[in-house]
Amino acid sequence: MKSPAHPKPSGSRARLRVAVFGATGYAGVELLRILLNHPKVSLTALTSQRFVGKRVSDVYPSLLGKLDLVLQEARVDQLASRFELAFTSLPHGASMEIVSTLVKGGKRVIDLSADFRLHDLRVYEKWYRTHQAAELLREAVYGLTELHRRELPKADLVAVPGCYPTGAVLGLAPLFAAKLVQGTVLIDSKSGVTGAGRSNAVELSFSEVNENFKAYNVGVHRHTPEMEQELSQIAGRSVTVFFAPHLVPMSRGILSTMYVELKRSPGEERLRKIYEDFYRREPFVRVLPSGYFPQTKEVRGSNDCAIGLRYDSRVGRLVVITAIDNLVKGAAGQAVQNMNLMYGWPEDEGLRGAALVP
Amino acid sequence: MKSPAHPKPSGSRARLRVAVFGATGYAGVELLRILLNHPKVSLTALTSQRFVGKRVSDVYPSLLGKLDLVLQEARVDQLASRFELAFTSLPHGASMEIVSTLVKGGKRVIDLSADFRLHDLRVYEKWYRTHQAAELLREAVYGLTELHRRELPKADLVAVPGCYPTGAVLGLAPLFAAKLVQGTVLIDSKSGVTGAGRSNAVELSFSEVNENFKAYNVGVHRHTPEMEQELSQIAGRSVTVFFAPHLVPMSRGILSTMYVELKRSPGEERLRKIYEDFYRREPFVRVLPSGYFPQTKEVRGSNDCAIGLRYDSRVGRLVVITAIDNLVKGAAGQAVQNMNLMYGWPEDEGLRGAALVP
Amino acid sequence: MKSPAHPKPSGSRARLRVAVFGATGYAGVELLRILLNHPKVSLTALTSQRFVGKRVSDVYPSLLGKLDLVLQEARVDQLASRFELAFTSLPHGASMEIVSTLVKGGKRVIDLSADFRLHDLRVYEKWYRTHQAAELLREAVYGLTELHRRELPKADLVAVPGCYPTGAVLGLAPLFAAKLVQGTVLIDSKSGVTGAGRSNAVELSFSEVNENFKAYNVGVHRHTPEMEQELSQIAGRSVTVFFAPHLVPMSRGILSTMYVELKRSPGEERLRKIYEDFYRREPFVRVLPSGYFPQTKEVRGSNDCAIGLRYDSRVGRLVVITAIDNLVKGAAGQAVQNMNLMYGWPEDEGLRGAALVP
Amino acid sequence: MKSPAHPKPSGSRARLRVAVFGATGYAGVELLRILLNHPKVSLTALTSQRFVGKRVSDVYPSLLGKLDLVLQEARVDQLASRFELAFTSLPHGASMEIVSTLVKGGKRVIDLSADFRLHDLRVYEKWYRTHQAAELLREAVYGLTELHRRELPKADLVAVPGCYPTGAVLGLAPLFAAKLVQGTVLIDSKSGVTGAGRSNAVELSFSEVNENFKAYNVGVHRHTPEMEQELSQIAGRSVTVFFAPHLVPMSRGILSTMYVELKRSPGEERLRKIYEDFYRREPFVRVLPSGYFPQTKEVRGSNDCAIGLRYDSRVGRLVVITAIDNLVKGAAGQAVQNMNLMYGWPEDEGLRGAALVP
Repeated sequence: MKSPAHPKPSGSRARLRVAVFGATGYAGVELLRILLNHPKVSLTALTSQRFVGKRVSDVYPSLLGKLDLVLQEARVDQLASRFELAFTSLPHGASMEIVSTLVKGGKRVIDLSADFRLHDLRVYEKWYRTHQAAELLREAVYGLTELHRRELPKADLVAVPGCYPTGAVLGLAPLFAAKLVQGTVLIDSKSGVTGAGRSNAVELSFSEVNENFKAYNVGVHRHTPEMEQELSQIAGRSVTVFFAPHLVPMSRGILSTMYVELKRSPGEERLRKIYEDFYRREPFVRVLPSGYFPQTKEVRGSNDCAIGLRYDSRVGRLVVITAIDNLVKGAAGQAVQNMNLMYGWPEDEGLRGAALVP
Repeated sequence: MKSPAHPKPSGSRARLRVAVFGATGYAGVELLRILLNHPKVSLTALTSQRFVGKRVSDVYPSLLGKLDLVLQEARVDQLASRFELAFTSLPHGASMEIVSTLVKGGKRVIDLSADFRLHDLRVYEKWYRTHQAAELLREAVYGLTELHRRELPKADLVAVPGCYPTGAVLGLAPLFAAKLVQGTVLIDSKSGVTGAGRSNAVELSFSEVNENFKAYNVGVHRHTPEMEQELSQIAGRSVTVFFAPHLVPMSRGILSTMYVELKRSPGEERLRKIYEDFYRREPFVRVLPSGYFPQTKEVRGSNDCAIGLRYDSRVGRLVVITAIDNLVKGAAGQAVQNMNLMYGWPEDEGLRGAALVP
Repeated sequence: MKSPAHPKPSGSRARLRVAVFGATGYAGVELLRILLNHPKVSLTALTSQRFVGKRVSDVYPSLLGKLDLVLQEARVDQLASRFELAFTSLPHGASMEIVSTLVKGGKRVIDLSADFRLHDLRVYEKWYRTHQAAELLREAVYGLTELHRRELPKADLVAVPGCYPTGAVLGLAPLFAAKLVQGTVLIDSKSGVTGAGRSNAVELSFSEVNENFKAYNVGVHRHTPEMEQELSQIAGRSVTVFFAPHLVPMSRGILSTMYVELKRSPGEERLRKIYEDFYRREPFVRVLPSGYFPQTKEVRGSNDCAIGLRYDSRVGRLVVITAIDNLVKGAAGQAVQNMNLMYGWPEDEGLRGAALVP
Repeated sequence: MKSPAHPKPSGSRARLRVAVFGATGYAGVELLRILLNHPKVSLTALTSQRFVGKRVSDVYPSLLGKLDLVLQEARVDQLASRFELAFTSLPHGASMEIVSTLVKGGKRVIDLSADFRLHDLRVYEKWYRTHQAAELLREAVYGLTELHRRELPKADLVAVPGCYPTGAVLGLAPLFAAKLVQGTVLIDSKSGVTGAGRSNAVELSFSEVNENFKAYNVGVHRHTPEMEQELSQIAGRSVTVFFAPHLVPMSRGILSTMYVELKRSPGEERLRKIYEDFYRREPFVRVLPSGYFPQTKEVRGSNDCAIGLRYDSRVGRLVVITAIDNLVKGAAGQAVQNMNLMYGWPEDEGLRGAALVP
């Protein structure tokens, strides 16, 4: 499934033609926002389930005059001539078939669903359902760019990580790489509401969520095996984590507070150094200085991941806190970051904006 | 339709048995909260469309151990023996038939839908739809308690006013009673999201409403004819208003800013005196002193209506601002206020709590 | 310091005269809201630092017509004749001297500051500062009512627990009482903003907090020793906990997610039974059935504490989640609950209201 | 005061060196966010009152690694060699002196305070205070770009309009230009909290603003004379407006609902055509089609102004609704738009991003 040759678009001015399948979900419209300002691509086809025939700017008036494409049905055969690369931002389970068709048709695909994130079919089918395109599971590159950048230039299919695993794995990778972890890592995550997508569930209505805070899917959330897959790979052993997600009355952002028992205690300063070294060349990961913890607002609208550390000698635990924007680094931004590497472009092309503060 | 005799529940300890039809909507559950602490009633039957067979405390865990009644189907025949008074808090249009059955069966009814608020069938059918129980339209008492208190003791059917008309009419009644108004009154209202009820509309999801402010149904909102009906009655002439509602990213509260041209200008002090006189004996309406404007938080969770005034001599307009909690004075609280007067109880029984601040 | 005799107010109708020192902070005004509807007390004196000479209803217009007392300076000598019981809701450190004067003057005091919560002076001075009334530290009853109810009838000075310790200790007490805990308990708490009091800190301004989520004081928050004091007392051994508080963009509510390693695993059902037995007679603590986790909205405005449990056999951890309203069970409500027991009144007098939902 | 010659920065690669005075307020940091991605400028000096000596990225960690300049005192003499253009984003009243010094020193200045927006000294001193640099009042260009674009290329001092006047004047200008307005226009505006700047006022704390809605400064807000100045100029006669601002519990965005009496009624379609013609060539103003009203979220983070219209024949009023982001089109974005025209760059350079939705 590795591409022998993905020629860059010919001509200095030719832009890569890009389709977005599922353009009217929240990850979809965030992709549009980012890609509109990306100098190397051109949006040429958008699909939507609910809004076929409308202009995307009718659904999202923020795009009026900026992107007025008409939304199409997700018919690969009819659209295939219009693009080289497809972002698929479809509901979990609905992505499989379309992605399979696209890949077989020679398209490169960046998939934002959960359908191709787990390499092990048994794990997938334990946490999700029967898989319709299992042959692609081992081929897909898990697009946590910082960990898999070398695999991207040749990838035909990239599975963009879930929003929770992105923040959690980036926060824990340096420790597992350094073989410092023992026991079960506890991951207590808090997410804004857009993480649930554009949904009409009563539980996500404003009147239910506002002025409320709750946990959900404690210990059984389906992002757990993603975290374990990636951390096990880094650690070179089977890693088990405990994951407890919570819902915050805000639109964007995930903060993960992670509690780690260390085999030995090198001290907070040394631990920070390990993180800084691990992420030294990364344009989007920043390790905060001593005494600072990240806040979700400082990454909102940006592709950044901020990491704070505190080692507590009183109880012998390291606390790692990470913050990302779930729709950017946790979805659309990371997808574009992957695209940039797939095509040999600067990694931060289209992604240089600072967070929207306040 | 006037009751010749509604005996008070016999015995000093007997509580009035009360049913709530539509107990799991937002106005319904607010009724439960208030009635639970009302010393003269006993909740004996609750209905729900979606949750038949569940305990109400399964749907609203805040009621666990306080009210654990099982939710029933809205079958009047099966429930009739259980209650003397029914609150009906059903979707507009769905109330008609049940209310009609209840009233014919000799029950007293306090209806929170829009079905019986307009006395004129033609007006109703212009703004809503065909009416199935038109014979009750002229009998129903419009339960804006401050204006119709004398009709309540004998009423069999009370139509609780809409949330917007409650705040708007209370804010304008003294002016129309004093024949001071000329021209079209402009009513610019801003409501919290619970005003739309417990809804699964995508437009009311947290991610859509949060960090957003918008107008909707400008000039065409169906609360307009209610306002005009009541103000016309007070004025003794046909009154036209212009009503522009807006949606505020908060759960509870309506603030209405109203712009009034006066026939003559008695000065702000004299105008405030007119308001104070009009509401002198009202337990729930307060006219704020000069320089104060109401805020929604100062009435949240209470049955109060706060009114602020400012006469601007620069442009010759009076600005009247009112604040209510849409679920209390704008729905469930006003319903209980009506009940208290229907049964000769103290008007503020069960309604004495101060607002939940902050 | 134990009172030999605290006669109940004489006469069946005489109400206890109560002063609130610090009536215009958030815990203060919440006390006023609750006490206004308490049938056995009468508010007779209120003090404020910033608003001396104003009516409390000028500062909080929600109280207009309900409580219009003029705010006084906190001069014990001048006010002493007006009350038998004082609630002191003053900044930490500022309470000491006034409380000491009050107690020496024969008043009973319920103090909402941190000044008298820790019995061990060394612990106090390690986490706070020099104590000016250390002789009262061992006399004060720690007013976590569920654990110390027997000490309350004779208490002259009650220290109302901090908001975080209230939710955390209630959630962990049954486990420590059953000697089931091993290792360090991790307490990941999330609080609404009123927990920080009525503050003009830029960090607490709307523009900073809204659409933001962050941790603060991780591992060093001063509520830690309170938790350890109470859990150690229950466990009969020295207990260490790790406490990581977070700030949620909402006004009220604390949710604490607690991760516990058990010495042995009796299974979730048996664990729930232990909790139910422990709290069987408690009017304000409810243990949720299997599969339910508490949400802060289901306790907002009420004195309830809701507890949810999940034992995860995959990683061998018990997760305990508790929810309270920080201003009610975490402050003013618990203070009133303590008062009720001090005077032999029904424990839930004035506290029976269900949560304000939605 | 008109510049005879402002040479463009020489060399195709030379960037204009820009200083921001008052870089750590909300308009200041928004300027930084925008200018960071502007290809023709280089940020070379930042000042701050409170944070001198810190890096700007210490105050706003969102800028870490992107902009780490050290904050300076606002000493013009010491900083003058570092920049050609200064943005001054200082408190009202504090701007005057520094702006005067800058202009006299030959710098071009874009001022975001209210100090130079009113051309008439008497009007200024009536609504504000004594002016210290009155000689500049008539020279300053009022930077509502759409109305004053011709004056910008030669301007040395641009006064960026207030946030409220920007949305209001853009919404009314076509009507006044067409001589269609009679009577007093009523402007009912609703603003997010960042409009008040980075403030430690208790009234702006989260616990006060959240779940609250209120009016303030009704009829007396100091943005009134700005609106009147600009509308009078367009109308060729003295225009009076009535302005009632309100505070919305959200961070960004202003929605203005404006009620206009027309001299004659050309019908909604014709009115929309007048608006479309007026703004046909404007890159940032969009007139929404029939039936659409703007929402603040559809402009959040962008420099756009969206306008919706509804003519109500029932009452003979035109309702105009406009939405802007108060920190972008209402402050920093409009400032950059002005800069682009001052230097002959594409008007939307650095401002092409679509709104951050959701």
